[in-house]
Amino acid sequence: MNRVIIGICGGTGSGKTTLAQKIYNEFSSCTTLISMDSYYKNNPSIPFEEREKRNYDHPDALETDLLIEHLKELKKGNAVDVPQYDYCSHLRKDEYVKTESNRIIIVEGILLLENIELCKLLDIKIYVDADADLRILRRIMRDVKKRGRSLDSVVEQYKSTVKPMHEQFVEPYKRRADIIVPEGGYNSVALDVIIGSINHKLLEN
Amino acid sequence: MNRVIIGICGGTGSGKTTLAQKIYNEFSSCTTLISMDSYYKNNPSIPFEEREKRNYDHPDALETDLLIEHLKELKKGNAVDVPQYDYCSHLRKDEYVKTESNRIIIVEGILLLENIELCKLLDIKIYVDADADLRILRRIMRDVKKRGRSLDSVVEQYKSTVKPMHEQFVEPYKRRADIIVPEGGYNSVALDVIIGSINHKLLEN
Repeated sequence: MNRVIIGICGGTGSGKTTLAQKIYNEFSSCTTLISMDSYYKNNPSIPFEEREKRNYDHPDALETDLLIEHLKELKKGNAVDVPQYDYCSHLRKDEYVKTESNRIIIVEGILLLENIELCKLLDIKIYVDADADLRILRRIMRDVKKRGRSLDSVVEQYKSTVKPMHEQFVEPYKRRADIIVPEGGYNSVALDVIIGSINHKLLEN
Repeated sequence: MNRVIIGICGGTGSGKTTLAQKIYNEFSSCTTLISMDSYYKNNPSIPFEEREKRNYDHPDALETDLLIEHLKELKKGNAVDVPQYDYCSHLRKDEYVKTESNRIIIVEGILLLENIELCKLLDIKIYVDADADLRILRRIMRDVKKRGRSLDSVVEQYKSTVKPMHEQFVEPYKRRADIIVPEGGYNSVALDVIIGSINHKLLEN
């Protein structure tokens, strides 16, 4: 069986998770969806106050080797145990989610295209692009309205780590993408093209 | 019959014509390919020396209204008489090419996305992106090696009109695209996605 790994990358608030979710919804019975965020490193030996201040937008915050290993296994058709991350404690949970392989494997994450080994495993590399002002507005609405964070803390984090890390590790790797989708999950024409091409691939074998 | 108009835009040397041609080759029996360049205005009353110096990278150089009219007719299933342009004399030829409609209509041109009325007719808007240095290198190789032009004249034209017009009328309208394809016709993954989605569309109705 020919399995296809689709990588969806893009900055915070770009609409990449929405795009990944919409593709997943279309093919849920034969698709595995993985978020790179699940692979945040576990640092139980570091005190909570310090963990809270760490830079989670830097590639070093992620256990990318484990994600690479898992994608290789999924490509072979094997199930993997995907870690779960607790954003409140900034720790990995004790339970893993047993995740079966499928015809379509979607992996989404901000830092996906930064890692060249990871890139090599992706059959289709999609970068979701959106203006920085619209991205920060979406992030504010999500973090303040849905996650109950203070506006001050969102702005402070954005300026101190999110923006500089975006400019260093996200935006430059747009050039590794096969396709750039403006406005991500809100771009119905691009979604239609991607879904159409997956439908065609599923017929092929 | 549900006809699809695909617009392919991008700067000089971006690979947009290659992309258009490769899609056309895949579906040639049910595809009509139109180049916006065929719609350069005819100016027989202007002396040759002046015609030669005109700015052919400005939207005013094109009879876009006629292209719009033709696309509307093709969408309805009617044939159109596409003008032919003679780049040596900078005049429209006397003969037209009778062009039948088809399930897939591809139109490609540098200034395609600049015109909002034209954009409204395009079901899928693709912008082919490439670095400016690679684009000018491709243009030099084409114009000097294949078209026998002098290096001086290519460089002079690039600096005086091609580059400023690109920055004013091409690049800004990238944001109107549904999909951005880095490296155009040389990007096999994007080509595969686009061809797959067209194959799927052809099955639909």
